[in-house]
Amino acid sequence: MCIGSNFPQAPPKGSLMHAYRSHTCAELNASHVSDTVRLSGWVHRIRDHGGILFVDLRDHYGITQVLCDPDSPVFADMEKVRSEWCIRIDGNVKARDPELVNPKIPTGEVEVFVRDLEVLGASEELPLIVFGDQEYPEETRLKYRFLDLRREAMQNNMKLRSDVVASIRKRMWGLDFREFQTPIITASSPEGARDFLVPSRLHPGKFYALPQAPQQFKQLLMVSGFDKYFQIAPCFRDEDPRADRSPTDFYQLDLEMSFVSQQDVFDTIQPVLQGIFEEFGGGRAVDSEWPQISYRDAALWYGTDKPDLRNPIKMQDVSEHFRGSGFAIFAKILEQDGTEIRAIPAPTGGSRKFCDRMNAFAQKEGLPGMGYIFWRDQGAGMEAAGPLAKNIGPERTEAIREQLGLGIGDAAFFLGGKAKAFEAVAGKARVEIGNELGLTDKDRFAFAWIVDFPIYEKDDETGEIDFEHNPFSMPQGGMDALNGDPLEVLGYQYDLACNGYELVSGAIRNHRPEIMFKAFEIAGYGEDEVKKRFGGMVNAFRFGAPPHGGCAAGIDRIVMLLADEQNIREVILFPMNQRAEDLMMDAPSAPTNEQLRELRLRVLPPED
Amino acid sequence: MCIGSNFPQAPPKGSLMHAYRSHTCAELNASHVSDTVRLSGWVHRIRDHGGILFVDLRDHYGITQVLCDPDSPVFADMEKVRSEWCIRIDGNVKARDPELVNPKIPTGEVEVFVRDLEVLGASEELPLIVFGDQEYPEETRLKYRFLDLRREAMQNNMKLRSDVVASIRKRMWGLDFREFQTPIITASSPEGARDFLVPSRLHPGKFYALPQAPQQFKQLLMVSGFDKYFQIAPCFRDEDPRADRSPTDFYQLDLEMSFVSQQDVFDTIQPVLQGIFEEFGGGRAVDSEWPQISYRDAALWYGTDKPDLRNPIKMQDVSEHFRGSGFAIFAKILEQDGTEIRAIPAPTGGSRKFCDRMNAFAQKEGLPGMGYIFWRDQGAGMEAAGPLAKNIGPERTEAIREQLGLGIGDAAFFLGGKAKAFEAVAGKARVEIGNELGLTDKDRFAFAWIVDFPIYEKDDETGEIDFEHNPFSMPQGGMDALNGDPLEVLGYQYDLACNGYELVSGAIRNHRPEIMFKAFEIAGYGEDEVKKRFGGMVNAFRFGAPPHGGCAAGIDRIVMLLADEQNIREVILFPMNQRAEDLMMDAPSAPTNEQLRELRLRVLPPED
Repeated sequence: MCIGSNFPQAPPKGSLMHAYRSHTCAELNASHVSDTVRLSGWVHRIRDHGGILFVDLRDHYGITQVLCDPDSPVFADMEKVRSEWCIRIDGNVKARDPELVNPKIPTGEVEVFVRDLEVLGASEELPLIVFGDQEYPEETRLKYRFLDLRREAMQNNMKLRSDVVASIRKRMWGLDFREFQTPIITASSPEGARDFLVPSRLHPGKFYALPQAPQQFKQLLMVSGFDKYFQIAPCFRDEDPRADRSPTDFYQLDLEMSFVSQQDVFDTIQPVLQGIFEEFGGGRAVDSEWPQISYRDAALWYGTDKPDLRNPIKMQDVSEHFRGSGFAIFAKILEQDGTEIRAIPAPTGGSRKFCDRMNAFAQKEGLPGMGYIFWRDQGAGMEAAGPLAKNIGPERTEAIREQLGLGIGDAAFFLGGKAKAFEAVAGKARVEIGNELGLTDKDRFAFAWIVDFPIYEKDDETGEIDFEHNPFSMPQGGMDALNGDPLEVLGYQYDLACNGYELVSGAIRNHRPEIMFKAFEIAGYGEDEVKKRFGGMVNAFRFGAPPHGGCAAGIDRIVMLLADEQNIREVILFPMNQRAEDLMMDAPSAPTNEQLRELRLRVLPPED
Repeated sequence: MCIGSNFPQAPPKGSLMHAYRSHTCAELNASHVSDTVRLSGWVHRIRDHGGILFVDLRDHYGITQVLCDPDSPVFADMEKVRSEWCIRIDGNVKARDPELVNPKIPTGEVEVFVRDLEVLGASEELPLIVFGDQEYPEETRLKYRFLDLRREAMQNNMKLRSDVVASIRKRMWGLDFREFQTPIITASSPEGARDFLVPSRLHPGKFYALPQAPQQFKQLLMVSGFDKYFQIAPCFRDEDPRADRSPTDFYQLDLEMSFVSQQDVFDTIQPVLQGIFEEFGGGRAVDSEWPQISYRDAALWYGTDKPDLRNPIKMQDVSEHFRGSGFAIFAKILEQDGTEIRAIPAPTGGSRKFCDRMNAFAQKEGLPGMGYIFWRDQGAGMEAAGPLAKNIGPERTEAIREQLGLGIGDAAFFLGGKAKAFEAVAGKARVEIGNELGLTDKDRFAFAWIVDFPIYEKDDETGEIDFEHNPFSMPQGGMDALNGDPLEVLGYQYDLACNGYELVSGAIRNHRPEIMFKAFEIAGYGEDEVKKRFGGMVNAFRFGAPPHGGCAAGIDRIVMLLADEQNIREVILFPMNQRAEDLMMDAPSAPTNEQLRELRLRVLPPED
């Protein structure tokens, strides 16, 4: 053995073997029996079986069992080896006894008897065990990410991520898209979040910004005559961290096309994403029908613009049945403008116990509760149970049942008021009901295009009109539409929802300067301000801009769904923690005085 | 015609045609004659031939000639169209008269008679003409990059760049490398240049840094058990701009492998790069022999560590012939320690005129001049001409000629002193001589690995030892070598030179903490400082680090060589100018007070 020796650059004299390995730890099988081999890897597990040391030697590719007994010249050294030491061994391949063959691993037919050993990298005591599934606090995992990443589940997640990105690229090339890299150190990009700034040394007092997305650049590429662009693009938003959002940089499949309609974009991206989910979904069903649902229908049916369509429940407006009814609360609500009563049908949910639990859920979410009706078999026929049914009487109850298509054993929940006030909770209740009743098929990916987003919204308090979403989308109906009621204007703008997540967002862009200035004017932005904030793009539109559109798909979220993880940090190699700190690299950290001096910056003391 | 109308999202009624195009501008040929087609693109060129308008309509893919005469219902509108307007036309495909066929373009057999016209995007007067090769100042080109990029040469450069990067990826995947994305907002990385800093909002007074290269992360990936990593990696260095260097972000093919020797890295990357140059070199010869030249030999032979091997000239040490000779200047130089006389052989350079011109070149470069000898046919035989030959006499002259392998019609130039003082100029003179004499084969890519870099260098003034190159390379001979004379220690460190450019740089890494601390100690860095500056990586090495190594290849430079461009900005979509400004996007720019307040920063007034 040679602990701490200089590692060899050339094979040992008289040997034709590579300095570190003749095979990977996944390669040996019965055909190699009696060969002399060299392996390198990490000590995954050591067992001492009555004076014989069994070591599972692990590398990126797999595990090979190596063993050593006092007959080996390096037995004494092998006894000193510990978990996660990186070692090189030479030895002879032996067939395992038939009853000891491990069919679960490719090398399970053989083991290697160790004749030589070199310690390539010893390890101190481990803060985190690689072998097995022991749980550790996230802080430990992130601080020792290099150990955490050695674990099988993390290796698999990262391989999956890499393979997904590679497959996306191949699919995009197959569609004649070219990938182009857009600048990272640049000007602010108008995506609505906070920019990360980069102080300029050559221009003290001025700052670059990291792009929240390559939005302006990809549109500039279209103006430059590049027809089909994509990029696996790093994006930067200084946002507060969340489970499904990285606090600093994240990646999008960003694409843009010239001379296209909305449907062209859908027809382009669907095969790419559907193919990815089929390729990497591990056999889970992947819907090939991607319905197009208007933003307003999505709100009505699902209470959200990112519905989970694995859940078959669709909410309905049942206001008419409650107007002037004996259920005074709802009847009164309906006397106010802009109110409605909405039903969440709950097939198979027809028990008081279940209904009470869901009612409690709504209360926990901050609502007064949800009224409900459930239908049960009462010997002589169906009976509608629950206080609400009693208050409105049998005719109205029956009309509701018919509208919702429910029967014995089913239930329905009711929420009332202004949609904005209850819609989000209704959406959550729908998810909860679907899960509780087992209606939601977990082994499936269900997609929906959400379309016809309104361009504007009105601030309830100030009454002011502002952009609801992205200011760069082409309004449906163009200039004519903008001359009418702004709140009625819909955009060629779309999201793709998958299993309750927003996977894609995009639009056909507003490429006409006159329509863009008008659109901004309605939201209270003057021409000068538009030119100042988005000058690069607006200026370009003056010189023969083509109609164009595209979208961006969140890579981290796609991989998270494929890996069946709940937290985006499980599919990112070196993520920040929830306070946007890198515990392993110690970032952010204090700059040197010299650095601040060069940038001509002073850090102010904290405010009280 | 419908100027300024809302562009259609659906095909016109009764038509099954796409809203914008039935074909691209590169698709139509004789087989389409008499078809009704729809094309979209830019007005490349307009000619009025006696009342008939000929328009070259251009899109990303090619050019189609369309024409219009008073028989067309849109003739009057067509007369208003100007260069670089983006238009959609409908029309009938007609065969061109045989004598008007243009065999240079794929659509040269046909033209399209225009029956309908839609202006998709009009253009104001152009600050830069797209058609033709007119030269513009760089400031104009960068400010109107979206027009500059429409030009044929720029379209081709960007397509080339995209295709090169795609091919690199395919080749790396073919070698079982996986691509992984490493963080961009992170801690400082130790590459020797200046970091770009990013102030943290959540941690006021602390800063992130953008990585100069993913050096630490790729090494951490190896410690994490990932065997073969690559990335087309964005890198960030706050350096002063140069023709072959981007002032902000640039891209590298970054790769790292575990359990490898230096030769393994060479054997991995050579086929990738050689393949790229063969695929995209436009038929230029690509050397398949990549010699390994030591850093010291490269300095002696070529006066640089990035030699252009297309030039066959190799310099030689000819000190012995001048020691104690009648050429007093050189004889005196040689009396001092550490001096030498070096010869630049110049085959076919044997004329006084040429020799004087090269002598003048050396003077322009700041040297007193270069002595020379040239050999001519003097009827009775060879004669060595020039004052130097006279001074040292025929025997020494003949010995020099023999050593250099020269003959009639050849010349040799001589420089003397300490190598450091003249070597760089000698290298330039070698290039100049090679070019002037036509010895350098311009249609060829010649590669050389430069190896055996010294780890340390001594500051001539202070006498202090510091790292010559990268502090993370494994010293040849490991700990034993570090215990000897530091100036004798060579590293497993290498560059790849191609045609006079450094294309690749890499090393086998020092993965042993004890050897790393020792290496830093020699250069005057204590253990605490190493831990503070490179803590993430050094900490990881304590837990079973594998031997590993890799390299990084400059994408921008590779594309620049392939595109035969002299300036890196010709192969970058949206480059900064030489003052690190983006004139199109207006970056860097002044932050808002609100932004500064959130970051708790104050900008100091300029120093006087």
